[in-house]
Amino acid sequence: MHGLGNSYIYVDAFKHPLQEAWLAPLARAISNPNTGIGSDGLILILPSDEADVGMRIFNKDGSEGQSCGNGLRCVAAYVVEHEIVTAPSCTIQTKAGRTEAEVISKSEHESIVKIDMGPPLLNRRSIPMVGEEDAPVISESFPLGTHTLEVTALFMGNPHAVFFVDDIESAPLQEVGSVVTDDPRFPERVNVEFVEIIDSKEMNFRVWERGSGITEACGTGACAAVVASVLNGFADSDQDITVHLSGGDLSICWASDGHVWMTGPAEFSASGVFYWKRQ
Amino acid sequence: MHGLGNSYIYVDAFKHPLQEAWLAPLARAISNPNTGIGSDGLILILPSDEADVGMRIFNKDGSEGQSCGNGLRCVAAYVVEHEIVTAPSCTIQTKAGRTEAEVISKSEHESIVKIDMGPPLLNRRSIPMVGEEDAPVISESFPLGTHTLEVTALFMGNPHAVFFVDDIESAPLQEVGSVVTDDPRFPERVNVEFVEIIDSKEMNFRVWERGSGITEACGTGACAAVVASVLNGFADSDQDITVHLSGGDLSICWASDGHVWMTGPAEFSASGVFYWKRQ
Repeated sequence: MHGLGNSYIYVDAFKHPLQEAWLAPLARAISNPNTGIGSDGLILILPSDEADVGMRIFNKDGSEGQSCGNGLRCVAAYVVEHEIVTAPSCTIQTKAGRTEAEVISKSEHESIVKIDMGPPLLNRRSIPMVGEEDAPVISESFPLGTHTLEVTALFMGNPHAVFFVDDIESAPLQEVGSVVTDDPRFPERVNVEFVEIIDSKEMNFRVWERGSGITEACGTGACAAVVASVLNGFADSDQDITVHLSGGDLSICWASDGHVWMTGPAEFSASGVFYWKRQ
Repeated sequence: MHGLGNSYIYVDAFKHPLQEAWLAPLARAISNPNTGIGSDGLILILPSDEADVGMRIFNKDGSEGQSCGNGLRCVAAYVVEHEIVTAPSCTIQTKAGRTEAEVISKSEHESIVKIDMGPPLLNRRSIPMVGEEDAPVISESFPLGTHTLEVTALFMGNPHAVFFVDDIESAPLQEVGSVVTDDPRFPERVNVEFVEIIDSKEMNFRVWERGSGITEACGTGACAAVVASVLNGFADSDQDITVHLSGGDLSICWASDGHVWMTGPAEFSASGVFYWKRQ
């Protein structure tokens, strides 16, 4: 399945339970575009004691992620389509907490899904980011080699570092993303986002995801971009804001109760059997 | 399926006949790593009046190829596995002609297959390559920008331009491949190969395939590399020569009757259903 081109292989672990030791090597094998199927990683849909369904996400390098907004939409679409839940809404447990999801509309092989992404965590130690004061990190100087950038950082399912730029097309995502993602100032690594503000209701967005590199779309990153924009006075809360990602658009709202809501598509690409040659 | 990481989606058109107009857009859609399955292209396995089975190959840009050595091995493995033929050997019709194939050994989801790739066509007009004399193109000066390279060119299922280098790792495959593949001296475009001779029985190999870019392996290209090596006196005919590709090894022999034989693996990666949203 994919959400805006952010493409994962989804394994239904209700039907196919997997041993813990298999998960990292399976994620690497199945994600390999030459010898596997090819994907941004592996997502397990599994039973949960705390929610209707659990979700675990493994990047293509085998590392485990905490959450993924595009993945959450796909998991909601899957469990509604396959009647693991009977309502159009469900709760999903991830490493980053419990999420509410609702399938708003459904056509053949495509659903539109709205997700409560929860509140962002703004204080430095919640991200986590190295530094003295445990306060929000808003347009803070961020020396990088011979340059100094300004970073707005926060935790939104994953750690995110947002950089505002004047022109998204010329932004040095490859160079900055590959370095900042492993920067020791972010002890848990970090997703790196470049954002170009169009107006208070619209922005362009590009992302480098930790463990995966440049991807077409990152749902938690798009939420982080909207939160960072509000924190910097570029956008308002309680408004639907359109985020243009490489893979398509998301509609995101930072509601007055502090929760971030994300609405976007979830599409079924293919289904079948993977022949895994375990080494 | 894949042969040495050269990964195509194979559609069994015995079971699922496809309309001609669907083929190019389907190849593009299914090969897209974000919104499709992701592959080097689409290969159809279909009925043939002239052989046991027909094969058509579409690159990920939707253009149609003539043949593909890794694909031929996979087609042979498929038709033997699915009992479309009853013997371990079969004939396969491609746009480049008819080929004999034999499944030499078979384990779960992997076969070793030997293919008669036929004789190379050496004369200039058979490649085709622009120029006066209709003779073999062996270490001919090939001006490119401010440099002059030496090219050995031939037709082996596809047009091939082979460049010998001292060190495969430092060879400028991206820069040279992307330019030479569309060079007007090759009116049908060309596959671009870099070859580093290790000794008379072993060589390193990298390829830029027309319509696909850099791939892990190209069977007809590896055959072309061995023929070019013999033509330049770097290797002998009637010998098994090991070609190290990014995706693994092939064993290739230019026999005294003029035919090139290629032996290598064919692996089943996954099978299932693709949900194609036709635009």
